[in-house]
Amino acid sequence: MVEQKNDLMEKIVSLCKRRGFVFPGSEIYGGLAGTWDYGPYGVALKKNIKDIWWKMFVTDRDDMYGMDAAIIMNPKTWVASGHVEGFQDPLVECKKCHHRFRADQVDLSRCPDCGGEFGEMRQFNMMFKTHIGATEDASSVCYLRPETAGGMFVNFKNILDSVHPKLPFGMAQIGKAFRNEIAPRDFVFRSREFEQMEVEYFIDPKDWESQFEVWEKVRMNWCLEIGLPENKIHIREHEKSELSHYSKRTTDIEFDFPFGQKELYGLAYRTDFDLKAHAAESGVDLSYFDEETKERFVPHVIEPSVGVDRTVLAILSSAYTEDEMDGEKRTYLKLSPKIAPIKCAVFPLLKNKPELVAKSREVFEMLRKEFACEFDDNGNIGKRYRRQEEIGTPFCVTVDFDTIEKDAGVTVRDRDSGQQTRMPISELVGFVKSKI
Amino acid sequence: MVEQKNDLMEKIVSLCKRRGFVFPGSEIYGGLAGTWDYGPYGVALKKNIKDIWWKMFVTDRDDMYGMDAAIIMNPKTWVASGHVEGFQDPLVECKKCHHRFRADQVDLSRCPDCGGEFGEMRQFNMMFKTHIGATEDASSVCYLRPETAGGMFVNFKNILDSVHPKLPFGMAQIGKAFRNEIAPRDFVFRSREFEQMEVEYFIDPKDWESQFEVWEKVRMNWCLEIGLPENKIHIREHEKSELSHYSKRTTDIEFDFPFGQKELYGLAYRTDFDLKAHAAESGVDLSYFDEETKERFVPHVIEPSVGVDRTVLAILSSAYTEDEMDGEKRTYLKLSPKIAPIKCAVFPLLKNKPELVAKSREVFEMLRKEFACEFDDNGNIGKRYRRQEEIGTPFCVTVDFDTIEKDAGVTVRDRDSGQQTRMPISELVGFVKSKI
Repeated sequence: MVEQKNDLMEKIVSLCKRRGFVFPGSEIYGGLAGTWDYGPYGVALKKNIKDIWWKMFVTDRDDMYGMDAAIIMNPKTWVASGHVEGFQDPLVECKKCHHRFRADQVDLSRCPDCGGEFGEMRQFNMMFKTHIGATEDASSVCYLRPETAGGMFVNFKNILDSVHPKLPFGMAQIGKAFRNEIAPRDFVFRSREFEQMEVEYFIDPKDWESQFEVWEKVRMNWCLEIGLPENKIHIREHEKSELSHYSKRTTDIEFDFPFGQKELYGLAYRTDFDLKAHAAESGVDLSYFDEETKERFVPHVIEPSVGVDRTVLAILSSAYTEDEMDGEKRTYLKLSPKIAPIKCAVFPLLKNKPELVAKSREVFEMLRKEFACEFDDNGNIGKRYRRQEEIGTPFCVTVDFDTIEKDAGVTVRDRDSGQQTRMPISELVGFVKSKI
Repeated sequence: MVEQKNDLMEKIVSLCKRRGFVFPGSEIYGGLAGTWDYGPYGVALKKNIKDIWWKMFVTDRDDMYGMDAAIIMNPKTWVASGHVEGFQDPLVECKKCHHRFRADQVDLSRCPDCGGEFGEMRQFNMMFKTHIGATEDASSVCYLRPETAGGMFVNFKNILDSVHPKLPFGMAQIGKAFRNEIAPRDFVFRSREFEQMEVEYFIDPKDWESQFEVWEKVRMNWCLEIGLPENKIHIREHEKSELSHYSKRTTDIEFDFPFGQKELYGLAYRTDFDLKAHAAESGVDLSYFDEETKERFVPHVIEPSVGVDRTVLAILSSAYTEDEMDGEKRTYLKLSPKIAPIKCAVFPLLKNKPELVAKSREVFEMLRKEFACEFDDNGNIGKRYRRQEEIGTPFCVTVDFDTIEKDAGVTVRDRDSGQQTRMPISELVGFVKSKI
């Protein structure tokens, strides 16, 4: 079973590289552990995911304010949040082969790589450290943000002062975060550089239970909107014992990845821990004045957190499908048309017939104005179908002789069933749009 | 004159903070020099700019491939590109007050801050350095990318192998880059963390002159598309003496910023310098095989480079306008409707009339499905106009008593002229769409 699942991961990683979704970071230089470079279809998939999130969580709502804070922040941010003190993993090093491991992930009796003895365990802070300005000493140390959240708490007052929102309201941000993982693993699941989509939703503390439930529903709607299969989604309530000291409730969405059921998203009620900590560290008042009740208080916060890369992996791994068609094995990505990088591909049946090529270019130019399309006249038609199936294109349109000689429309092939139907050219835009 | 211009910059910076475009980075902690946090309208403006760029340079073209490479790359990338060796500024430090300056930007006889004597000049590498993995020694040094270009050259072969493009073709990427500037200045013009939109366009070397001209036109179309005023745009040809050793031609677009005519965009013909350097450093063949001529060669490259933050500043500083209306001074942003964060605001004439509020909510819900809108019922109507003018909203729609009592449509107010016209509600979507 484990064999089989690792096999599936290998197939996904291989398809991602072969078809231009995701490449190992800096690959020609032998790579750089825990970094990944997104190629054309990976970028398109990520952009679709991010655009849907931004629309659903920011522009379609009246109570949300977008942000884009710097990755390098004043280091006091991470003192206040507790990351400088506590964002660390236990590390052990083998005395013989000098390989390093997370102490909580290995049997500490002997090194699994060479059987050598481990040295003493030490705490290793996972923030990437750098120096800002021209001196390299303690006074110039900065960190790459380990999460986007800090950029929002630090700007809470700026939002109050510039857009004057009323509670409840949220701040939202999409951006890169960095963690110097001792053991990056599982493709883009645990990497050293990743992208987050986070909301900090500020509330009156008396409403926290009802607000938490609303956010659980919003989160589930998000999962379904991007086409994650419901039967692979599991909600896990954190036990009292595993809650952070500041959190009163956290529920994760776990997902059936090929390597097991693992955390995909988190939803945490963080009380007023963050605003109070930043107010204390900065000396700036981060309270809110309620015009109606004339009360002043520090809002509490609910944080729905989404990882872009884990979302990509959840989508790809549940979309990866192998079946047989016309006696041949095939591989395809059963992506929801909403998030598929290419919605529709257009082919001339034959490349060497100028009238077919001209007509199919015309159809292509019409469709591309409406959604992401590709034109392909390379190789035989079966090969072109295989290629589009592997990048998850839901529809392939072929211009054939009947199209131009009998004005008989085009064929539209469905990715999943392989079925072809003839359709007038004038109906194409409406048909594809109804699916996305 | 200089006074006046600095005054204009101060006004722009102040408006950006007051209205939620751009805040000083980590402001509650006293800031962090050279970093800026984008607020709700700044993010919306940036997203519009980036989306237009992506559409114009990637999805609307058949010959472009999007990428999103990691910010932390294998350090050999920056050895090959010459950044480890040569990406440095001359630095001097005052012996008395210890302030640091770029040696090429100050009179070296005496410190301008305290009159003290300068120590010896030294070279300062502007790449931010960090360590990856659990050890901090020379073997684990990595850099934050100083430009996005490296991520594309390093993936050139991956693109050849996965999407099999034919020359000429380009790779395109939007992402953060980092430079540890000694003297960050001029708001978001020269910051330590910024966002780039770069294309590496690979060509047959015999075509370089004609391709360069095509890209000059594409670049000018871009400037006009986002509404930069033509009379502030200057094309500057680099002199032979200032060309990098690998570049045969570079033209900048300079722009009339409030602090002078400065570089906005670059367009460089970089020959085969980059691919050859990465091939030599990595030992990987980065040549291209032309199926038609059966020739194998290393493509040359033309690089049009766009800074997102400088674009934001060029747009804001040319849009900032003060005039007088109805005997009152007002400030507004004359943004092109295409890039304005909010396209249309909807108001009920009075907040305390439920029928006005209900009708205006209805109009708002209809419009927001089509483009970015805001609903505002806060304060008197004049105050609401002022606010929308300051964030550059081109149209304000007001629902008044005639709307509901006489079915007389709504008033649409033009930001620049202040003129109001009545319009049937059914025509609103079409009207605004025709402007954006």
